[in-house]
Parts: sequence; C-alpha cells; structure tokens
Amino acid sequence: MSKPSQPKHAISPTRAEDFPEWYQQVVKAADLAENSETRGCMVIKPWGYGIWELIQRQLDQRFKETGHQNAYFPLLIPVSYLEKEAEHAEGFATECAVVTHHRLEAVKDEETGRTRMVPTGELAEPYVVRPTSETIIGAAFSRWIESYRDLPLLINQWANVMRWEMRPRLFLRTAEFLWQEGHTAHETREEALEETRMIHRLYTGFLRDHLAIPVIPGEKTENERFPGAEMTLTVEAMVQDRKAIQAGTSHYLGQNFAHAQDISFTGRDGSVQHAHTTSWGVSTRLIGTLIMAHSDDDGLVCPPRVAPWQIVILPVAPKPESREAVFESCQALAETLRHQSYCGEPLRVHVDTREMNGGVKKWEWIKKGAPVRIEIGPRDIETRKVCVQRRDRAANEKEFMPKEDFLRGVGEMLDSVHHMLLERARGFRDAHITGCADMAAFDDHWAADNPGWLLTAWNGTPAQEEEISKRHKITIRCLPVDHAMLPGEAVETAGSNCILTGEPAPQLALWGRSY
Amino acid sequence: MSKPSQPKHAISPTRAEDFPEWYQQVVKAADLAENSETRGCMVIKPWGYGIWELIQRQLDQRFKETGHQNAYFPLLIPVSYLEKEAEHAEGFATECAVVTHHRLEAVKDEETGRTRMVPTGELAEPYVVRPTSETIIGAAFSRWIESYRDLPLLINQWANVMRWEMRPRLFLRTAEFLWQEGHTAHETREEALEETRMIHRLYTGFLRDHLAIPVIPGEKTENERFPGAEMTLTVEAMVQDRKAIQAGTSHYLGQNFAHAQDISFTGRDGSVQHAHTTSWGVSTRLIGTLIMAHSDDDGLVCPPRVAPWQIVILPVAPKPESREAVFESCQALAETLRHQSYCGEPLRVHVDTREMNGGVKKWEWIKKGAPVRIEIGPRDIETRKVCVQRRDRAANEKEFMPKEDFLRGVGEMLDSVHHMLLERARGFRDAHITGCADMAAFDDHWAADNPGWLLTAWNGTPAQEEEISKRHKITIRCLPVDHAMLPGEAVETAGSNCILTGEPAPQLALWGRSY
Repeated sequence: MSKPSQPKHAISPTRAEDFPEWYQQVVKAADLAENSETRGCMVIKPWGYGIWELIQRQLDQRFKETGHQNAYFPLLIPVSYLEKEAEHAEGFATECAVVTHHRLEAVKDEETGRTRMVPTGELAEPYVVRPTSETIIGAAFSRWIESYRDLPLLINQWANVMRWEMRPRLFLRTAEFLWQEGHTAHETREEALEETRMIHRLYTGFLRDHLAIPVIPGEKTENERFPGAEMTLTVEAMVQDRKAIQAGTSHYLGQNFAHAQDISFTGRDGSVQHAHTTSWGVSTRLIGTLIMAHSDDDGLVCPPRVAPWQIVILPVAPKPESREAVFESCQALAETLRHQSYCGEPLRVHVDTREMNGGVKKWEWIKKGAPVRIEIGPRDIETRKVCVQRRDRAANEKEFMPKEDFLRGVGEMLDSVHHMLLERARGFRDAHITGCADMAAFDDHWAADNPGWLLTAWNGTPAQEEEISKRHKITIRCLPVDHAMLPGEAVETAGSNCILTGEPAPQLALWGRSY
Repeated sequence: MSKPSQPKHAISPTRAEDFPEWYQQVVKAADLAENSETRGCMVIKPWGYGIWELIQRQLDQRFKETGHQNAYFPLLIPVSYLEKEAEHAEGFATECAVVTHHRLEAVKDEETGRTRMVPTGELAEPYVVRPTSETIIGAAFSRWIESYRDLPLLINQWANVMRWEMRPRLFLRTAEFLWQEGHTAHETREEALEETRMIHRLYTGFLRDHLAIPVIPGEKTENERFPGAEMTLTVEAMVQDRKAIQAGTSHYLGQNFAHAQDISFTGRDGSVQHAHTTSWGVSTRLIGTLIMAHSDDDGLVCPPRVAPWQIVILPVAPKPESREAVFESCQALAETLRHQSYCGEPLRVHVDTREMNGGVKKWEWIKKGAPVRIEIGPRDIETRKVCVQRRDRAANEKEFMPKEDFLRGVGEMLDSVHHMLLERARGFRDAHITGCADMAAFDDHWAADNPGWLLTAWNGTPAQEEEISKRHKITIRCLPVDHAMLPGEAVETAGSNCILTGEPAPQLALWGRSY
C-alpha cells in the first residue's frame, strides 16, 4: 500500500466529510456515551459522566452563591396537573412517557411455554414521567407560600427528565436527559424579570468561562418561547457545522402558572396576590454542545475546567530496567501537581500505568480530549525535563521543558488552552454571522451547504416569521440583547430597517438552522 | 392557666407517647420533607436535601478512593429484561411503575365541557421505571466486557428509583427514593466476595463516622437475601423504638446475573467465562435512620458531618442602636469560622439575620437540629465572649466562653457532639440487645411494647426461620459477622447451641422487628 497523501486522522469520517457521523464517532472514540435498548435513552459512560459531574458541581456553586437552594420533587406528575395550564400541557404532553399500571404479572405463554411479564393494576389516574417540573413544583410552591415574607423563593432541582424524542441524538436530543431546573417565585414582576436576566447572565458567563463557548445571549420570539412563558431568554452556541444549539434558557412565566396553580400570597398591603414565577435550566445537552464546538478530526477536545483529568501523565519506559524509576518519577510529578489548584479546585491528574502499546495509549488520550499530556522517559529523568503536548495543538507537536518551569506554569498553560478554544470558537462564530438587509440575498443564503447565521433587522409578525422559518427550515435563534457581542460588520450590514417590511426596526434577529 | 408540671417539648407527641407520629412531626418541624400528591412520593425540602447532598458527596469520595467510577443508565427498563432473571423479576416486578404509552391526547368531555388528557400511543413493549438497575446495567456490562483485561469493572450510579410501596413513610419507605447503586464485575468469585465485603466495611464505617450510627454488620439469611443474590451483607441500625432499620446492603450475585445477561469474557487461559458480579446501595432511607436514631422530643438532632449548617449564629440585639454592631460581630465570627475546616471541609456556618422573635428563631434551629448555636449580644462584644449551646445537650443549657477559646476548640466541640451521639446510640442499642437461649423466654419477649433485639445461637432451616418470623412479626436482621461488635453479655447468654434445635451452632442470629 502506498502512503496516503492526506494526513491521517483518528476520527473517520472527518468533520468536512460527514459532520453528523463525525460527531457519533467522536462520542464513541472518547467513550462518552452510547445508545441503550431503551428507546432514545443513552448510557452515559464514566468519561462523559465525569464531565457532567464537573459541570454540575461548578454550576451548583454559582446557584448557591446567588441564593438558591436545592430540593427534590417527584418524578411522576399526575396527568390532571397538566390539564391546569393549557398552553404548557400542549407543549409537553404530546410526547411523554405515561405510567398507567403499578404492577407486572408473570403470565405463562401456553404455546411457547415462556413466561412473560404483563402490566396489571391499572391506576385510577395515570402519571407522566416529568418532561419538566413547573406543574409539580408549582403545587409545592402553592403550599409553601403564604405571605410576602416567604418570597423570593429560590429553588433548584438536579434531576432526570423525559421527552419522547422521535429523532434522538446522543447528548443533544435524548428521551431521558439529566438537567437542573431552577424554579423561583417573586413578589413583583420586576424582581422576577431580574432573576430571569441574572440567570441568563450566569449561563452566558458559565459557558464562556467553564466550557470555552462564546454564546450569543438573546430573547426568543413569541413563536419560540417556552410553552406558558411570557419571556424566554436563551444562550445560543454556534457549532462547527454552523448550526445553532440552544444551550440554556431562562423563562419569565409571569403570573400564568401562579394563576393555574394558585401560588398566591398576602402582600404588604394585606391583599391576596399571585406570585411572579421563573424557571430556567441547562442539561446534558451542554456536553453535546462542547463536543461539537471544540472537537477536531482526532476526537474530543475537552475544555480544561470540565476535563475529568486535566493532565494525563504517560510513562515511557521501553526497557524493563528503567520501568520502576520512570513510574516513580511520574507518580511524584502527579502528587506535586495534585497539591496545586486551578480555578479553586485541586488539579486533576492521572498517571496511565496500563501495560499496552505506547502509541495506542497516547492516541486514546488524544481521542478522549485530555487538555495536557505529559510524557516522561528515562532520559527526561536525567535531564529533569518533561515532554508536554497540548490538545489544542497538532497531535505531533511537543515541547520539552524543564520540570520546574512546567510546574510553575501549569495553571497558565491550562488557561492558555481554555483561551485558545474560546478564541477559536469565537473567531469561527463571528466569521459565520453575516449581516443581511436584502430579502433576495436572505433567501439565497440558505441554499448553501452548512449556511452560517444571518443577522437582520426585524419587526415582522409571528405569522411572517413562521412563514420564513418553514420556507428555509430555519428559526430566529434569538433577538440578541447586547449588540456589542455581535460582529460589528454584521450589525452594520443588517441596518435598522426590517428586512421584510422595510419599516424601521431597532430590533435585530439572528436566523439559523439548529439542532 | 396553671403551669404544666411536665417539661414542655417542641415536638408533640413525644417519643414515649407515640413514636411513629413523633417521627412525622420531627420531619415536619425540621422542614425536611413532605408528602406530595404523587402517591407515596415525597418532596425533599432544602434542609432535608442539604443532608442528602452531604451524604452523597462524602460517600462519593469514598467510592472514588476505592476505585469506582460514576456513570448513568436509563430510567426505563424494557419489561423483557426482567424476564431474564426469574427470581429477581419476582422480587421486584410485583410493585413497580409501568410505562405503557408515550403520548397524551386532549379529549373534550362532551358533558362537562372540560378537557382531559388521556394516554395514547401504546408501546409495543412496556417499560418499568427502574426499581433497581441490575438488569439494565448488566446489559451494558455485557457489551463492555470482552476480556479479563476489562475486569474488574467498578461502576456506581446516583439515581432515583421507584417501588410501588403500599405503606409509604417519609424517607424510610417511599415509592420514589434517591440512592446510589454500585455494580461491579470481577474475574473470580474471591475478588467479587472481597468487593462485597469491602463495601460492607465502607458502609459500616460511613454510618459510624459520618452519621454517628453504630450499626451491626452481618449477613442476611437465605430468606432475607436480595432476589437473585448468593450472599447479602447488611448494616442494621437500631432506632429509638428499638426497631431495626436495614441501612445499607452489599450483594454478591455470583454468576446468576452474568448467566442471565451473558456477561462473559475471555479468561487468562483463553476460555470463555462468566463474570462474578456484585451490587450494593444506600438511599435517602439513611436520613430517616438518622432522624430516628438521634432526634429527641425537641426535634431533629443532626450529626455534625452531615449538618447543612454546623454552626448557626443568632444575633441578639433587642435595641436598634446596637443592631449594626451585633450583626457585624456575628458576620465577622462567621467569616473566621468559614476559613477553618472540619473533617477536610470548610466549616458550614450560617448567620440568621431574619427579623423575628428571638425565641421563635432559636427554637427553629433547635427543631432543625443544628449541632451548635451561638448567640451574640451587645454585652458579649464588650466581653469578647460568645454564648454556646449544643444540640446534644438540654435546650436551656448554655456556656459563655471567650471567643478565642471557642474558635480554637470548635473542631473538638463538633467532634464531641458527634461522639456523644454515637455513644448514646451505642449505649441504647447495647442495652436493648439481649442474649437468649430459651425458646419460651424468646416467645415471651415479643409480647412486650417496643421489644429490643434478641441474640440467639441458630442453625434452623429457612422454613423454621419463616415460621418463627411469622409468629412474632420479626425477622433475623442478620447473622453478625463480628461478635466483638455485640454486647459481650448478650453473646455469652446466647451460648453456642441453637435456640430451636439445641444442636451446636457457632452462628449467632439477631432477631428483631423492623421498618
């Protein structure tokens, strides 16, 4: 066989060849998750779950710092709860897991002789497995809140939820997923709006500072709002096929749920009032987002703050007689590193002592996306050097540096990896947001392969929005809240007259295809 | 009204008056949890969930230190999975939530005009909400394990599970509960047995060192084993009505599940073998156990290591002009304390600045079981003293001590609270374990109110055990693994001949009523 002229990559197909299949292969190669025999449900494997645990711990700390408390509410929601808020019910009840029986009975099949388990014990009222918990948490709030002194009530839940997805995709869209759902109740509209916006800022910052993902924060149009909400704020990420992923949302629910569920309180003036509520959440979808945002044709690239191992040390000891000294040196380095902290947590360092081919082992960690790899061999011990390889750089790029220098600079190096990923993603995103003020150009744009996002001025009606959306299989991802976060050229080109009506429209809309 | 002659308690009824009702009232007064409208399911409120978060974090650390990794598996288990291991299916399938449909449809009731949501979209194969995950995790293990090199596989899952309990009781027995379930696969029987025993020791130590509960570790008899297991180890706690609570179990599953689910591997000799598996778990039941073990007639008594706030500081500022100085002093003390650590974690300190009656506030924290309360008033600032009250002592007992002494000794004080609770529980338990070698005395024992446990020598058959169990509504809680952990007098009295057969029986059995 002749040598291939193309550089060889660990993942096949590459992003350019087949992005959706590349994604599946990265998830597999990094051993993050897999499909199960439960329709649309995934098994999250240790490396994937490790990322989720870090996301969870770091977000949880931010929620607690902003005054929220965790609690836990029932998995099953009585169907009658869903009947109370019609719009909400319509949005969620269509595809959900319904529990109708509470017992299985073993029945022997006369023909085959096999025993089958069949449902029995029908319930008077069926339950749904929570698709989201507004209704059941609202019922608790209704019991807990009596006076304005009980407000604000700031609750968060870490839980599994279920929506019967028709086209599941690992992490991005699965029937069951893990998430957090915040639910808060406030005395006034202003306070509830401020909570909604505060969480929106928190999510924006979390994605930027922990996942190295530069999202565009904005408001959803009426068409795209959470069922039952008066305002939905979203953070939208662009991934490498230029599609959008809605990475987190924060909803102002007005008094809709409070009316439907009687979340009322005696106000300061003695009158009975209904609370203003909010809800907000992010899910294991964040893992899908970070994979699609950062990974390359060699596999996962994991941002340092959520990498289960930030530094993987690989002993290189081809000769048995040097083995012990090399292993000892690796373990000693790991111990020293573990006493250092990065972003307020001890460094997470792993020494891979498995007996296996060194090249295969190294590529395993490349595919799993460990931010920094260190190789130490017998000669490095003598010279007191380490061989450092960064996941954000080419797989064959390595730097030999004095161990002391590495130890002194390891925090900065991880920061540098983080910022490289963030800036690369920001550069990519900004290069694929284009301003547009001309409807013909707008229509042409979506015929391209992997079209980027278009930014336009917009004051069309919901019906007009829907018509355009259907025509091009796109949506308004958001009405950006901060024009300074958009590429300046796109803002300028979009102008200030609605692309459809031509009327003055100070509001910009960001259009795109999405997952 | 004349003064009541009895000392007044915060919880009514008291333990002596009505233990089950006292328990409900403690859960309510401490704001730990409440019933929901989902049958048998509870809402875990922030103070109760805070305890669970600490249990979870501290146990999780121990699991990771012993080489386990977390992962996540589907909530819904195809019914056909349960058909594979007959004994297991029989044990769990009888009462469980069955998902049969994946959609709700809005149907207008012609008579009432109201819209009802009815199940539609029947599934070809129903699912059960996991009552435990041996079957679905076994299916994953079957995919993951190919060679002896893949073993041992050491996995843990933090999850919600569901069993359709007929007589639910908050924390102790609820339809849905939170737990961890460890699932491991090993090359040999010996390795799997050692894993089962190691986790058993881990649970024993965790309950003693974190929850101040002195359990009796032992083995379950065949009658009481986990469905499908070859050996079940248990840790049994005695609570204040002298009943037993099975607080955690660790099962050696032999090759039963491996055969049922084809968890096989190529061994060192090239032959195909079946893995030896284990499973083990503790749940939110631990919270019920600690409430019943330690609490008193004034409410919850929370062991320091799992108290959401270990120290609660109450500003006492009756006059407005001293308010600011007192608040500042309290916050400064809290900050100093938060920089100290206890058992490897920063001290958890809360300053309760709510404007409300001081007595009511103080009693709230007594009922919630905060281990140490500190009062600071204007005079204490001058004298540089703090007023310290410990939850393990009488509610009116207080000690004024120099602030510096308190700060220096706070870790020791929390240790002292922990050990007081542990020793009190141990003393209570040992006083209510009685050795018995005479069948007539044995039979008489169970007629008493709140009978304690009986220790006997035992070599009866499963049928004989069942007969005795039914007669007195008792069970063999365990066959203790370490006689040195039992009260010496009871061991001596129990003797070495079976209480029933009179035959030599080196094995002791511990009998009792249980939750």
